[in-house]
Amino acid sequence: MESNTNVLPRPLRGIIPPMVTPLLDRDTLDAAGLERLVEHILGGGVHGLFILGTTGEAPSLSYRLRYEVIERVCGQVKGRVPVLVGITDTSFVESVNVAHKAQEYGAQAVVLAPPYYFPAGQAELLEYLRHLTPELPLPLFLYNMPTYTKLVFEPQTIRAAAEFPGLVGIKDSSGNMIYYRRLQSLLKDHPDFSLLMGREELLADVVLLGGHGGVCGGANLIPELYVELYNAACSKDLPKVDVLHEKVMRLSNAIYNVGQYESSYLKGLKCALSCIGICSDFMAEPFHRFRQAEHNRIRQYVKELGIAPGK
Amino acid sequence: MESNTNVLPRPLRGIIPPMVTPLLDRDTLDAAGLERLVEHILGGGVHGLFILGTTGEAPSLSYRLRYEVIERVCGQVKGRVPVLVGITDTSFVESVNVAHKAQEYGAQAVVLAPPYYFPAGQAELLEYLRHLTPELPLPLFLYNMPTYTKLVFEPQTIRAAAEFPGLVGIKDSSGNMIYYRRLQSLLKDHPDFSLLMGREELLADVVLLGGHGGVCGGANLIPELYVELYNAACSKDLPKVDVLHEKVMRLSNAIYNVGQYESSYLKGLKCALSCIGICSDFMAEPFHRFRQAEHNRIRQYVKELGIAPGK
Amino acid sequence: MESNTNVLPRPLRGIIPPMVTPLLDRDTLDAAGLERLVEHILGGGVHGLFILGTTGEAPSLSYRLRYEVIERVCGQVKGRVPVLVGITDTSFVESVNVAHKAQEYGAQAVVLAPPYYFPAGQAELLEYLRHLTPELPLPLFLYNMPTYTKLVFEPQTIRAAAEFPGLVGIKDSSGNMIYYRRLQSLLKDHPDFSLLMGREELLADVVLLGGHGGVCGGANLIPELYVELYNAACSKDLPKVDVLHEKVMRLSNAIYNVGQYESSYLKGLKCALSCIGICSDFMAEPFHRFRQAEHNRIRQYVKELGIAPGK
Amino acid sequence: MESNTNVLPRPLRGIIPPMVTPLLDRDTLDAAGLERLVEHILGGGVHGLFILGTTGEAPSLSYRLRYEVIERVCGQVKGRVPVLVGITDTSFVESVNVAHKAQEYGAQAVVLAPPYYFPAGQAELLEYLRHLTPELPLPLFLYNMPTYTKLVFEPQTIRAAAEFPGLVGIKDSSGNMIYYRRLQSLLKDHPDFSLLMGREELLADVVLLGGHGGVCGGANLIPELYVELYNAACSKDLPKVDVLHEKVMRLSNAIYNVGQYESSYLKGLKCALSCIGICSDFMAEPFHRFRQAEHNRIRQYVKELGIAPGK
Repeated sequence: MESNTNVLPRPLRGIIPPMVTPLLDRDTLDAAGLERLVEHILGGGVHGLFILGTTGEAPSLSYRLRYEVIERVCGQVKGRVPVLVGITDTSFVESVNVAHKAQEYGAQAVVLAPPYYFPAGQAELLEYLRHLTPELPLPLFLYNMPTYTKLVFEPQTIRAAAEFPGLVGIKDSSGNMIYYRRLQSLLKDHPDFSLLMGREELLADVVLLGGHGGVCGGANLIPELYVELYNAACSKDLPKVDVLHEKVMRLSNAIYNVGQYESSYLKGLKCALSCIGICSDFMAEPFHRFRQAEHNRIRQYVKELGIAPGK
Repeated sequence: MESNTNVLPRPLRGIIPPMVTPLLDRDTLDAAGLERLVEHILGGGVHGLFILGTTGEAPSLSYRLRYEVIERVCGQVKGRVPVLVGITDTSFVESVNVAHKAQEYGAQAVVLAPPYYFPAGQAELLEYLRHLTPELPLPLFLYNMPTYTKLVFEPQTIRAAAEFPGLVGIKDSSGNMIYYRRLQSLLKDHPDFSLLMGREELLADVVLLGGHGGVCGGANLIPELYVELYNAACSKDLPKVDVLHEKVMRLSNAIYNVGQYESSYLKGLKCALSCIGICSDFMAEPFHRFRQAEHNRIRQYVKELGIAPGK
Repeated sequence: MESNTNVLPRPLRGIIPPMVTPLLDRDTLDAAGLERLVEHILGGGVHGLFILGTTGEAPSLSYRLRYEVIERVCGQVKGRVPVLVGITDTSFVESVNVAHKAQEYGAQAVVLAPPYYFPAGQAELLEYLRHLTPELPLPLFLYNMPTYTKLVFEPQTIRAAAEFPGLVGIKDSSGNMIYYRRLQSLLKDHPDFSLLMGREELLADVVLLGGHGGVCGGANLIPELYVELYNAACSKDLPKVDVLHEKVMRLSNAIYNVGQYESSYLKGLKCALSCIGICSDFMAEPFHRFRQAEHNRIRQYVKELGIAPGK
Repeated sequence: MESNTNVLPRPLRGIIPPMVTPLLDRDTLDAAGLERLVEHILGGGVHGLFILGTTGEAPSLSYRLRYEVIERVCGQVKGRVPVLVGITDTSFVESVNVAHKAQEYGAQAVVLAPPYYFPAGQAELLEYLRHLTPELPLPLFLYNMPTYTKLVFEPQTIRAAAEFPGLVGIKDSSGNMIYYRRLQSLLKDHPDFSLLMGREELLADVVLLGGHGGVCGGANLIPELYVELYNAACSKDLPKVDVLHEKVMRLSNAIYNVGQYESSYLKGLKCALSCIGICSDFMAEPFHRFRQAEHNRIRQYVKELGIAPGK
């Protein structure tokens, strides 16, 4: 039923993979790869899909292409899970523009990191959110990603912004667990506010102690691993959590750490997806796909870890 | 003569003010203010005009508005001085799009900081420039602004990129003078490569020792002060340099340092322009214009410094 | 039995509080307060005591005073628990000097952050450790504290250094949980290597998933809280972990966040200790004790949290 | 005459080289090399000598060795030029201790960077200086070196501290010329306050526009080059300044940029000194002397640049 598809659970819980954007070149989608990838991820039993985030290389894509991604993905998912759309932009107006496209094509929520060019202070960021939230046609998740944006929504800023209508959660990708635990403590009285972990290495940590779920890049590759870990952590099955967490760490240590650049996470993930035949590993500038040597190492890791597309 | 207007001096020398973008609200130009501002600046005898840079709040503006700025300014300047257009973007394709608009409306060059979301390495940035320069229809200046972009084009990267056709100079706004002196030394054999200083407090320094000029924010307010300082430094008139440099420092210490945020430069500059009746002080998010208390301090400084629109 | 007291468990597990250094002035110990503090902490059932760390203000103390702290504490503890002594120094020779004093007075281990003045690379840090470990008369714990030292022992550096005789563990105070989980994964085959968490907000996290314990500043105040949380996490009693973890968060949010400076953790902790009559709140430069307003807020929090010296 | 030797010019002007500390091993001076080095530097006509700074590896040396350096250098210089002694320390008491040794052995001033372990705020740093200056038996220069200390004495802090008796100047090694120009502007009314530039690449800049001189590492190698450049800049002989400044840049680009680490400045400088037979190139941990490949490159550069000990 269509109307159902617009219901976003409060708080949003579970595994919401940040989807890779398959490309043929810098301004052309790998449309067949995208279709395979969406089905591959949904086949793993995930609880949502986050498109046009960091993992989706959104800041490197043209607006035209971003709109095409939203249209295709929403059209394919058809409400099977909530679709969250990244609207992070240095321009307030462009963020609002993308949010309207997201609503038009049927997405359920939008996701926003701080406007990351100018060094805004916390009072300025709070006012920015006070101005922005009424302009958005969909519920909003904040996104903490300080190594890329250099700006942080401080816990007290989020505590204050949590009163704004439409602000429904946060995805924290800082890796700074003090930050996450502080948020959790400050938002005890907002049980509907969703606290999602953006680093899969910490999924077990957060779900065991009251967190709501994870935005796990590796779920592009093996969605069911993260869903199982989430379920094991929810049911406090610690021996199972230990085993599955260790699998997540092995994948992270292998696939995301090839080559000398900080881009190794994205390059490794896209390369592994191409190794298992899901989609192209082309990357938009300023990055480029792995050369042969790195590609061969990823292929070897994919084999050792037993990564393969689901049936 | 039209054909003349397309000649960009090599190296570009002199004072090229980074123009403020006058706004009525976040997506509406203050068109009358813009017109006054352009004439005010050109009346000071400047050698070029740089629009849609950091001082122009470009990252905070919609693309529609950016295009409008290019069209209006180029249409008004009509080749009296070269117009340089900022095309910095995290998306390669959008940078190229803006560059084509710039060429279409009659600008003479474009200016680009590193794509500032993803943490690209130097080899990745060099490849990015190798891909980008052939796509651009106008000569390119690089732009070093590490506090905002967090990425730096390292001197050796610029040395290598200086061989790419169409790359004609750099604007350095780091304040790191070692960086500037290293560039100068590495590019001794490229006398046509323009080395512009983005911080007015260092204009005297660079022109006295072989630099080509400055992109001085204060030249929105008092263009002739910077032109005179540039001329005095070119003619090695050290006593005059001392006096004019001290005036520049007094303006900087006063107008750019009101309030507690890093945005004080931009807010102070726009506020002072409104105090002297040039244009509105509205700012796009994530900033906002000064409140009354700060406004009053700026008004006082403007009076003390004797800032007034030219005849 | 004396010989027993020299046995350091491998891996070291449990709660090892980083002891505050009670001072009467910048170069005079509060000897009576120190004695009370040691008994207060040991009365809580802790598993070790770490003196002259960051919480102990070691970098701010004269060497003479540091030696006096070692002598007094070791003399008082008399082997009831292992004593770990901070030897972090920018000078290799002075680190070795403190280590010899530690051994002479009967401590069981030493703790070392990177030499934090010069920006050493990872290969340089590894060679530094290769030179240092043979000179130390006691087992060594590394100490990761990047916000204060600006240098990090990277996981691969620690993996390599874990082969050096005498290197027995690490205390991680970064708050970066990815770092901790990576270490854990890389050192799977070194079950004797102790992985201690330096941030009490993350004690529950690490112990639930295989970590060995915590160096918890709050255990100066309420040692039994941290010991109980450690025990609950060891026995996987998740409901009890939830309750105790929330108490730890409440203490952290209150006591460590008064005032505007980053020193609020240290000032709040010492102030709270003085509120409950354990020791003086004097701090060595560059810090100073809280003024009256902040003192009153801490006193109020101490009352609300029910903090009181043990029987 | 002894009494003369205690006169420190106000403001101190000219070239004050930051002396390298020649070592045979980590805790043994190369006493013969030290003696040669002092005479080599003084032979170049310098205006002072700064020992135990960053270039002198002071933070890496034991206190015993630091005291030996002070005693030997002061005993050899015998008041021919003022000797400045670095007393930077995280411990207030140890800074005062070194200052007393400096006075005892006959030095003329001391030099202090912020206490660099704890993240002190500006109000805390100002109070620290308020406490420290009355305890010092010699005039004090501040030292701005943010890449190593991570703390900055902000211009307004220095402006306020310039009122404290005994505070006579600052050495700025940030490379941030905006900072230097701001200081100069804020201290216009303190003509006796010495503003020294710690980066030789910017010596020409500062002296041409009213700065007092430089603390130039390269003056360990070719003291007369920096003295000549200083003199040319004082007499506003711009063509000569251009030629000498370019020589300084060539030395910097060559000698200080071999190898991949940030330590290349110190390693290159010590290596070059050993190539011309002045002293050993041994370095205290965490550094080590260049291996053969880097040594050979430095030897080649020394030859190309024509560096040789004075007659």
